[in-house]
Amino acid sequence: MSRMLTVAIDAMSGDGGTAVIVDAVRTVLNQRDDVHLTLVGEPDLIESCIGQSPLPNNQYSIVPSSEVVTMDDSAAVALRSKKKSSMRLAVNLVKDGSADACVSAGNTGALMAISRFVLKTVSGIDRPAISAIIPSVGGHTHMLDLGANVDSSAEHLYQFALMGSILAEAVDGVSRPRVGLLNIGSEDIKGNEQVKNAAPLLADSPVNYIGFVEGNDIYTDNVDVVVCDGFVGNVSLKTSEGVAKMVSHYMKEEFKRTFLNKMIGLLAKPVLQAFGNRIDPRRYNGASFLGLQGVVVKSHGGADAVAFANAINIALLEIGHNVPSMIAARLDETLSAA
Amino acid sequence: MSRMLTVAIDAMSGDGGTAVIVDAVRTVLNQRDDVHLTLVGEPDLIESCIGQSPLPNNQYSIVPSSEVVTMDDSAAVALRSKKKSSMRLAVNLVKDGSADACVSAGNTGALMAISRFVLKTVSGIDRPAISAIIPSVGGHTHMLDLGANVDSSAEHLYQFALMGSILAEAVDGVSRPRVGLLNIGSEDIKGNEQVKNAAPLLADSPVNYIGFVEGNDIYTDNVDVVVCDGFVGNVSLKTSEGVAKMVSHYMKEEFKRTFLNKMIGLLAKPVLQAFGNRIDPRRYNGASFLGLQGVVVKSHGGADAVAFANAINIALLEIGHNVPSMIAARLDETLSAA
Repeated sequence: MSRMLTVAIDAMSGDGGTAVIVDAVRTVLNQRDDVHLTLVGEPDLIESCIGQSPLPNNQYSIVPSSEVVTMDDSAAVALRSKKKSSMRLAVNLVKDGSADACVSAGNTGALMAISRFVLKTVSGIDRPAISAIIPSVGGHTHMLDLGANVDSSAEHLYQFALMGSILAEAVDGVSRPRVGLLNIGSEDIKGNEQVKNAAPLLADSPVNYIGFVEGNDIYTDNVDVVVCDGFVGNVSLKTSEGVAKMVSHYMKEEFKRTFLNKMIGLLAKPVLQAFGNRIDPRRYNGASFLGLQGVVVKSHGGADAVAFANAINIALLEIGHNVPSMIAARLDETLSAA
Repeated sequence: MSRMLTVAIDAMSGDGGTAVIVDAVRTVLNQRDDVHLTLVGEPDLIESCIGQSPLPNNQYSIVPSSEVVTMDDSAAVALRSKKKSSMRLAVNLVKDGSADACVSAGNTGALMAISRFVLKTVSGIDRPAISAIIPSVGGHTHMLDLGANVDSSAEHLYQFALMGSILAEAVDGVSRPRVGLLNIGSEDIKGNEQVKNAAPLLADSPVNYIGFVEGNDIYTDNVDVVVCDGFVGNVSLKTSEGVAKMVSHYMKEEFKRTFLNKMIGLLAKPVLQAFGNRIDPRRYNGASFLGLQGVVVKSHGGADAVAFANAINIALLEIGHNVPSMIAARLDETLSAA
């Protein structure tokens, strides 16, 4: 029998609140009997969301917390003054071994600060990075950092590359994933100092470094892991969201323009829906905080139950593949080889 | 009678070669009788492309050049060793007053180096920036810098903001265009040093500064001018291209999946085409080099005749609105007020 995987869920965060999170928990527990989910939050609220459609008793538990980290709380306030918050207690559960991972849809800066303080980074990693799965023509790409670190040095980019490579290898089962460094051209002379200095570090590293890639490569089958500074990665990710929204806006407008267009839209609906499903951002919800001594996954604040369930599944995937200990082991090898 | 607007065209660059460029010239001259275009390149080749469908005699001329800057030439080689290239001669025509602007689909780095060396920057501008028009839900957004400058300082970002604001005001006729600084969050504490330091400069400037914007805002109606470092801007722009290509790839796949889908695709074709036209990248081809003493527009290398004609039209728009002298005058005011 496989071991029980345990995930602590911050049940008080996210725009959709506890109801959405409980729905996501139900979805996951309906699919898997090897998972235990610990909901951290207001017990009455959680129970009322569970309501008439009970969850399997032996697969969930509730850890009470009445304090919430808000989106407006600074990381410092969340860390120092909200030590009983649902977010903090969820991370604490990972630290004390009661949970293998935690998932929160709350304030990113607060979650990062708390995770880093409570769990600490793996030896050899200065700063954790935020990594996410991005849909691409060939399948998907892992991209990091997406905003935890601005002004990343060459050495940091190198650490992101190591972590991203291990993640892709573990969760996708790809051997020697292709790692590219995000730049504004493929020639050696292009780019800023950090990128130029990171290139030789990566070329000498154990990762399968394929050189510079550009923004458009993220969405192709040219690369498995895209490494970049957090400022650049965050802008790139949000730009993508903006393009996708604009495209969908224009598409809807065209299919509503005339009566005939509306009729055609009805006919084309299943095709458009199948298309929409393939690039559905909910399928990609859940960003991993890599480089910590534990698995922490951040859900989008606006996640619905489908999206939040996806974030839980990402946490389960990383626990299942022991991503943090693989990162620690690989760094150990790399550091002792250096 | 309005004055004749003159544009020098580098007729030897771009993936489509001279044939595409001559087609674009024909398109523009068919639409306007107040324009004179000077084609710089191999006269026999140009004449053979003009062929059986002559251009209006009084609206075009040819300046011979047999040297070409290739995509592989470094900026230094293009600048120092190719002084008779079609690109260099086209820029020279702007310098000596024979043309009001020049357009090239060639090597960006070479075009920037040559333009900067020959035309010089406007007083008060350290480094020219690349600006382009980006489609948005509300209409369009101007974005700069898109790759001319990496590691832009706060002062550079401030200069980009001034130039972008003047450009948007001049070509769109918008009074006090909304200028946003691209960042990874809207809170003051977010971002890298350059962005944080640029914010107060912009708040104190004559531009209508609306604060930080994020990647997704580029494609909305929230902002008219988005200011960023060239590394970040280039990644963002190419990311957008990547997303658009992936979306179109998936859409085509879905409409080909089954026989029924193909039939629906045929029915929906006019709607999809109308949709496609609205986000057609050819309609947005043509990036402006701002901050030079003259108008220089860079066309995408892969431009077809429609796209290249659009780049010529952007040059005409900027000449018509005297963008370089407006930038110079506004900088003069700003500097003397400081």
